[in-house]
Amino acid sequence: MHLPQGYRFAGVHSGLRSEPGRRDLALVVSDAPATAAGVFTQNRVRAAPVRVCQERVPTDAARGVVICSGNANACTGKRGLDDARRMAALAAELVGCREEQMLVCSTGIIGRHLPMPVIESGIRKAAAELHAGPAALDAVACAILTTDTRIKLASRTWTASGVEVRLVGLAKGAAMIGPNMATMLAFVFSDARVSSGDLAALTKSAAERTFNCVTVEGHTSTNDTLIVFANGQAGGGKTPPLKGESLRAYANAVTDVCAELAKAIAADAEGATYLITIDVEGLRSDAEARQVGMAVANSALVKTAICGADPNWGRIVSAAGYAGVEFEEEDLSLWLGDTLLYQAGTPHDFDAAAVSAYLKRERNIPLRLRFTIGRGRCTVWTCDLTAEYVRLNADYTT
Amino acid sequence: MHLPQGYRFAGVHSGLRSEPGRRDLALVVSDAPATAAGVFTQNRVRAAPVRVCQERVPTDAARGVVICSGNANACTGKRGLDDARRMAALAAELVGCREEQMLVCSTGIIGRHLPMPVIESGIRKAAAELHAGPAALDAVACAILTTDTRIKLASRTWTASGVEVRLVGLAKGAAMIGPNMATMLAFVFSDARVSSGDLAALTKSAAERTFNCVTVEGHTSTNDTLIVFANGQAGGGKTPPLKGESLRAYANAVTDVCAELAKAIAADAEGATYLITIDVEGLRSDAEARQVGMAVANSALVKTAICGADPNWGRIVSAAGYAGVEFEEEDLSLWLGDTLLYQAGTPHDFDAAAVSAYLKRERNIPLRLRFTIGRGRCTVWTCDLTAEYVRLNADYTT
Repeated sequence: MHLPQGYRFAGVHSGLRSEPGRRDLALVVSDAPATAAGVFTQNRVRAAPVRVCQERVPTDAARGVVICSGNANACTGKRGLDDARRMAALAAELVGCREEQMLVCSTGIIGRHLPMPVIESGIRKAAAELHAGPAALDAVACAILTTDTRIKLASRTWTASGVEVRLVGLAKGAAMIGPNMATMLAFVFSDARVSSGDLAALTKSAAERTFNCVTVEGHTSTNDTLIVFANGQAGGGKTPPLKGESLRAYANAVTDVCAELAKAIAADAEGATYLITIDVEGLRSDAEARQVGMAVANSALVKTAICGADPNWGRIVSAAGYAGVEFEEEDLSLWLGDTLLYQAGTPHDFDAAAVSAYLKRERNIPLRLRFTIGRGRCTVWTCDLTAEYVRLNADYTT
Repeated sequence: MHLPQGYRFAGVHSGLRSEPGRRDLALVVSDAPATAAGVFTQNRVRAAPVRVCQERVPTDAARGVVICSGNANACTGKRGLDDARRMAALAAELVGCREEQMLVCSTGIIGRHLPMPVIESGIRKAAAELHAGPAALDAVACAILTTDTRIKLASRTWTASGVEVRLVGLAKGAAMIGPNMATMLAFVFSDARVSSGDLAALTKSAAERTFNCVTVEGHTSTNDTLIVFANGQAGGGKTPPLKGESLRAYANAVTDVCAELAKAIAADAEGATYLITIDVEGLRSDAEARQVGMAVANSALVKTAICGADPNWGRIVSAAGYAGVEFEEEDLSLWLGDTLLYQAGTPHDFDAAAVSAYLKRERNIPLRLRFTIGRGRCTVWTCDLTAEYVRLNADYTT
């Protein structure tokens, strides 16, 4: 993995999480001021760090982001807001920039105040360990996890106007993953030079087609954040901002990286044993297709059926039916993998044992709902619902 | 339980379900033509018997309803529609009425054709066993169940203009219980005389405040049906239709019975160990309050927290936050039982161990969300989400 130029990373154990040595605090710094744009939760209840970031982006002078995991600093009132600002201010002081140039994120349990002495010592430790190598990036990817079982990284390198441009993205997911951007925490760091207006627009568009199309249980978190940095350090830092075709290529790269991270989040959701990819096509608009895809993806009955390797297509068809999109049964056909289960409103004769065997064998399950009404389409990613998900979430704070 | 006058009941084993002797087919007949009104699923995918009933109610000449459990006759195309009509026609022939006077319902697995020889012999058997006593009513209440663990009956008797009036209601629930009327199958039989227009209006209103406020996992079924019969046989069958105060008393009795059945459905949902009653008050309208209540009730994270006896109020507050209703955090306070957990946007200091002990002890858990915006209010009923729910639904058809 070729890392973008001009970034340093640190992921450390502050003690916020009780497991000995577990990394729980991350700092990423851009040596030069970077443009940065973000997309944030649409929950009415927004965590303190989300509020702070929303004041600070888009910007063309961001210097970094400080992140803690294990405590969401959400529903914590005025004190929570002071704590979030203090996290950013201390990181800024140690890095040598103004506090408004530092962004801040948190993820974890809702409703507990941050133990600020622990956090502050963690930030000092992280600032002392900043490093440009891939091991430091991995440490950041670890430090932002909660109940995730693995780190989520994606990168792209390509050439724009003769200059090699690089970007790397990282994310954490696991649960409380719902449809209304941006799900969880995700970061994309790149060394391209992009205007903050272009970056804001392409970030929103990338989120719409990636993180906003992934769901674990439809519960939109209070902390959801995607932040994209572009620090212009590729090619010695002397290139003009990307425009036209180069900008489109950059936007595609950001979207690709976000899609890869979004899929990784669904596949590594709490208790999940399947990644389910739902392609919906042939409705009046992409928005209608997304609405149907999300209704199917959020149905506990669909998710438990897949968990049980049961090709129970009636649950899929009926979930489409209550999505709030108008159609007649005759408009809809359904495939699971390559098998046609339901054709234009009537059951199709298929080998249920063979489909069940396929479900037991595969871990990536494609569902395809084809309507005959229009040209709108969308892809949605989700996972199955397992007894392990229930166990994890029944025992979460105990 | 005093049964309404002029009804006969039968619940038999037809063989549609494989368990030996398990009742799976029910017939209820009103000796006199009854007014009947219904409320049906809002799923775009409607089962064949729902389509048949929608053609036939409201009416002032209904003579009964035939019901099978174990097969939903949903997503079965034209053949399913023919089968549903045939069920009603055969029951009508045996009872001695026109086929349009007979209603028909099914509940169970989606997407399988009915084994009509089995169903037909079951209908003949039921017609031969029709009886007015409470044992026959119990047999009907049994015969409509699927994965329910107990029958759901409720009754009221009161005096209207000197005449004793009676009603009895029965329902089945279990899973695929979602918010958009009418959830599951429910029937109310009464010996009042009510015009079909009044009956249609009060049935809709009763459903809105009862069955439409109960949810197990938010998955609106293809078969949801509530039918209310009023055959006018109270007081020797010579009373005029209820009007004014008497009609309001009747509407209240129907609503009460529906509420009792709705709560019973939530309490007996698949795998459920808790009945959760969510009171939402202080929003701009009852509809907004219902929207917030339903978002909390359908959150897998809220449901697993209760399952784990965990007073994780952050999940409740954040579910309210994504319900799509505008509010500021400062507008909201939250109680679990008598304990204030969250006050006007900030965490309230409470004894988490005591609340957890309360959750382990009690089976009926009241949640109260109080907003300070308006006067809209709603009560919503749901249950917890357990590993047993997952097990039941992962193994459903195998």
